[in-house]
Amino acid sequence: MGQTLTEKILDDHLVEGELETGEEIGIEIDQVLTQDTTGTLVWLQFEALDMDEVQTEVAAQYCDHQTYQFDFKNTDDHRFLRSAAGTFGAHYSRPGNGICHNVHKENFAAPGKTMLGSDSHTPTPGGLGELAIGSGGLDVAVAMGGGPYYIEMPEIVSVRLEGELPDWATAKDVILEMLRRFSVKGGVGKIFEYTGPGVETLTVPERTTITNMGTELGATTSIFPTDEETKDWLSRLGREDEYAELKPDDDAEYDDEIVIDLSDLEPLIAKPSMPDNVVPVREVAGEKVDQVILGSCTNGGYEDILPAAKMLEGRTIDRKTDLIVAPGSKQASEMLAREGWVAEMMAAGVNFSEATCGACIGIGHVPASDSVSLRTFNRNFEGRSGIEDDSVYLCSPEVATAAALKGEIVDPRDLADELGDMDAPGIEIGEKYGTSADDPDLIAPDEAVDDDLIKGPNIGDVPLKDELESELAGPALLKMQDNITTDHIIPATQDILMYRSNIPKLSEFTLSRVDDSFAQRALDADGGFLVAGENYGQGSSREHAALCPMFLGVEGVLAQSFARIHKANLFNFGLLPLEIDADDYEKIEQGDDIEVVDDVSEAVRSGQEEFTVRVNNDWELTATLDASERERRILADGGKLSHTKKQAESGDSPAPADD
Amino acid sequence: MGQTLTEKILDDHLVEGELETGEEIGIEIDQVLTQDTTGTLVWLQFEALDMDEVQTEVAAQYCDHQTYQFDFKNTDDHRFLRSAAGTFGAHYSRPGNGICHNVHKENFAAPGKTMLGSDSHTPTPGGLGELAIGSGGLDVAVAMGGGPYYIEMPEIVSVRLEGELPDWATAKDVILEMLRRFSVKGGVGKIFEYTGPGVETLTVPERTTITNMGTELGATTSIFPTDEETKDWLSRLGREDEYAELKPDDDAEYDDEIVIDLSDLEPLIAKPSMPDNVVPVREVAGEKVDQVILGSCTNGGYEDILPAAKMLEGRTIDRKTDLIVAPGSKQASEMLAREGWVAEMMAAGVNFSEATCGACIGIGHVPASDSVSLRTFNRNFEGRSGIEDDSVYLCSPEVATAAALKGEIVDPRDLADELGDMDAPGIEIGEKYGTSADDPDLIAPDEAVDDDLIKGPNIGDVPLKDELESELAGPALLKMQDNITTDHIIPATQDILMYRSNIPKLSEFTLSRVDDSFAQRALDADGGFLVAGENYGQGSSREHAALCPMFLGVEGVLAQSFARIHKANLFNFGLLPLEIDADDYEKIEQGDDIEVVDDVSEAVRSGQEEFTVRVNNDWELTATLDASERERRILADGGKLSHTKKQAESGDSPAPADD
Repeated sequence: MGQTLTEKILDDHLVEGELETGEEIGIEIDQVLTQDTTGTLVWLQFEALDMDEVQTEVAAQYCDHQTYQFDFKNTDDHRFLRSAAGTFGAHYSRPGNGICHNVHKENFAAPGKTMLGSDSHTPTPGGLGELAIGSGGLDVAVAMGGGPYYIEMPEIVSVRLEGELPDWATAKDVILEMLRRFSVKGGVGKIFEYTGPGVETLTVPERTTITNMGTELGATTSIFPTDEETKDWLSRLGREDEYAELKPDDDAEYDDEIVIDLSDLEPLIAKPSMPDNVVPVREVAGEKVDQVILGSCTNGGYEDILPAAKMLEGRTIDRKTDLIVAPGSKQASEMLAREGWVAEMMAAGVNFSEATCGACIGIGHVPASDSVSLRTFNRNFEGRSGIEDDSVYLCSPEVATAAALKGEIVDPRDLADELGDMDAPGIEIGEKYGTSADDPDLIAPDEAVDDDLIKGPNIGDVPLKDELESELAGPALLKMQDNITTDHIIPATQDILMYRSNIPKLSEFTLSRVDDSFAQRALDADGGFLVAGENYGQGSSREHAALCPMFLGVEGVLAQSFARIHKANLFNFGLLPLEIDADDYEKIEQGDDIEVVDDVSEAVRSGQEEFTVRVNNDWELTATLDASERERRILADGGKLSHTKKQAESGDSPAPADD
Repeated sequence: MGQTLTEKILDDHLVEGELETGEEIGIEIDQVLTQDTTGTLVWLQFEALDMDEVQTEVAAQYCDHQTYQFDFKNTDDHRFLRSAAGTFGAHYSRPGNGICHNVHKENFAAPGKTMLGSDSHTPTPGGLGELAIGSGGLDVAVAMGGGPYYIEMPEIVSVRLEGELPDWATAKDVILEMLRRFSVKGGVGKIFEYTGPGVETLTVPERTTITNMGTELGATTSIFPTDEETKDWLSRLGREDEYAELKPDDDAEYDDEIVIDLSDLEPLIAKPSMPDNVVPVREVAGEKVDQVILGSCTNGGYEDILPAAKMLEGRTIDRKTDLIVAPGSKQASEMLAREGWVAEMMAAGVNFSEATCGACIGIGHVPASDSVSLRTFNRNFEGRSGIEDDSVYLCSPEVATAAALKGEIVDPRDLADELGDMDAPGIEIGEKYGTSADDPDLIAPDEAVDDDLIKGPNIGDVPLKDELESELAGPALLKMQDNITTDHIIPATQDILMYRSNIPKLSEFTLSRVDDSFAQRALDADGGFLVAGENYGQGSSREHAALCPMFLGVEGVLAQSFARIHKANLFNFGLLPLEIDADDYEKIEQGDDIEVVDDVSEAVRSGQEEFTVRVNNDWELTATLDASERERRILADGGKLSHTKKQAESGDSPAPADD
């Protein structure tokens, strides 16, 4: 049986498991990327691994979310990230050089490679045939350390493209059509592989718009085959030697197939406040627009902004609508500037800003209250723009620009009719993209300016846990009810999350919503257990909810049941998650002395499922450890970081050390 | 006796008083400008005047401080300001169009005009022979309403320029030399009039760098004569018809004369953390630099950034130094972009940002902790950059750029020697400046898109006080000690100042540092008095310290003595400031009933100085009102706003209604 393109890449990188849907597989990672809001913790975790340098072919640290540097903590983070990249051998991209996905696409993305990134839009380079997956920061740190990435083998779905896009319909409309049809949950557990004769009608930048926003479908990733378009684009970047032809076998079998006829598409728009709330633009025409923003990792490339610039040339925007352009990379800005388009856009009324994620995540250019904002971004979740009750629409650069010209939502086909002299700009690839070995904004490991970490006062260390000991005993530090969420464990409010690079400080807020004396009590006790009812750790996947209790010295959790992701996080940070029954839960009181009677280390490693727990040296209960063999090894080694470190030291790393 | 240039302009605009040093004069105002952090209150005050439109020749509202819009309150403020400009007949400059002083200079500044602006760097157009003065917002609102501006006639000091600037010395070094010699207090009560043969060697943009930063000397304003340079510059802006030749008479007498030989100057730098802490650059050479920023109203013009761009062309900045360029106006950005310089700067490593005040007032690009930042700005007060204990140096664009290239402070002459191929860029005026009647970023009154005010939820009204009544009585709401500051009255912390457009909300914090129940008690009492010891209202000049008590219903202050500026603010907001002696101060208790026995309205208007105050209907004291005739009229009318409104309604406005 033939293979899909996805299976071919996975096969090339497989280090554990088999390529059967739903089975756990481990794959080698070629490239990693991190950005500035997740990167600090990634590097602190990597530091805790105590390794000299990153083990992947490419590691790249981008500064893109906090480029406006509103607080010294942002600037300190950037300086720390530069020092981490220099110290450990990663590329460092300065604030203002652009969004990680755009800069990575331009400089490193290559057919057939695997990538892990601590950002949900990591799948962007799928448009060049790279298999790129977003993940939590610890997974990225471990991949940097040479460890494989484990994932349940997703379903592979063929998205067969037919026909060709008509004038004024764009790649954005392809992915909006996917969202319209399948919703924001339609891709969960799936990889979308684009196939069919329509593929070759799309340029690489158009393909990456589609793979980027595949994230909004909930997909694991999205990928295109490579062809002459890919080769041509790489050659314009001076990277033609990185081209490889990659296609599925003719007899490849997919779990499912979807067909989209490109020639049927028209300008679409996602209404507030969900990316799948998609309708034809004409359905909402006439809505007054206060703000338009072009940019983001979805539509921030040279090829995305050039059509807008052409539409704006010789015209001026509506006097009551603000138009902000924040390109996805300085590369794009510089090309547009060199060709005169930046000046044209400014003359038309554009506020031209830094290359940044910025407004997309509510950092800067927050809409006015009770106003309408059209954006070429990928998400319009309520409040994401920085103001509650916002009214954000998502659309192509062409639709956004038409709205800025008219001051209201308008199908660009209708605006073109009205103006009489505005042609569909189409897509034009840059003649030559100026990536350079001497780029002052993308500092290569061999040009690094730091060889030691520079930590501002808000940047702490990440603790590394010792191996699980044979004897485990301590007080029941806190007894909680059912359904404790990770928001209870570590609140996500802005005043607390600004300490995300500072685990000692962040840990002070652990479980404060349940008992604000907990953190200090746990530190004082120097060991002990949490006790909880059903569904402990539900909600957001944030790893701080395990990391912070670990920092405070918590050694295990006794709960009636665990939420799936949080339980994985407990393994990852070396905390023993034991299930207990309702009667025993009732009998344990906060403050009781808890002792695991078994040789814990031995029992965890050997696969033992039932543990005897003695309470107050008075009575006993039986608790259950439900864990895979891999999870048991991680737990026994003191968590995933310690586990990875141990593997590396023993020369047992499943990934080659340096290739 | 001949007149100085300043006297000629003042004479042309004089509506009250005589041009004798120290005497109060009233002058007619031709132009006003406001920006986005002071403008909201100005327009709320103008709204309270209940007039249909602004009365000055030019009124312009700029959005420049908060252009990054990182809170919806910023964006709401901008929308309100646009609506106010549209409603009342002012020009509106969009966020991103540039800093008020730069955009005003390019579009409106003209020889011989007077201007009042609610920003301390309002004197900038002095470089074109405009007499421009910074003031509080209420003075600007009143000037908009047609009222004259009152000021004590300053000393006029001649700054005689001789010789010509050598290579690498710049206009910034002229004003740094002034600061080195005379300190940040050296200009208090003075107007600096630049004279001598050196004037004609300086272009208009160089002159405006000097007049702009005259503010740091504490000067009332600074001014240059006009000449062929002025005429030429205006003609490149398409405004040659606004040129007028303006010179002092040959026999003009000055209060003082200073001589600066331009040919003696060398690159200078102001060390942390005061603009007068000036030394030759060579004295601090070798200091490592983390961040360099080009821009601001002092050095943000096309002519300021072009030399930097020439130095950067074909080079790249040091890898450990960040270089941010935020031009002073989009005009400058667009010219630099059109000529290819923006692309060159980007290639060299520049993070090119919006035209904004931004970093100069700590909004964006806050330095990292324990780092060095070189900026072409005008102020380096400790903490102004957004981080305590900062280390900010002020210098010319040439010195700043040299530091970015070398990664440390270096005299550009030494860097030029070291590089061998870097010529002194000199000053080059733009061929043509593209101001246009159809500018989409500067919306003229006749193109206004709003004809009604748009107020977001954080924008309140400004109360207008009624005329002083004949009977004044109420409780002693709060008894305070000596030396109460305006910081006690209205704290300036960020969490409170964000409500500066919202007087009802801001008033909740009135005197909260003394007694946090005060605001509610005052509101409940609906009238009453403050009682204080010596020097009440010392510190910052903020007018909220009078406005907020007025909003809460406070009718007067009984104090042993008043700080000068705050007392003026009490008149301006219609609160009766009565001086009492130490014994009476001791006897009054908080909560006592206070009654002014005289017919207050009549007594204030008639010039009565001694007032009888009855306490608890039990005993009496004598209090003193020390006020000029003008202050008495203002107070009796209910404050300056009410006074101005009344004048306008009676057709008694001293300024012509519309010319």
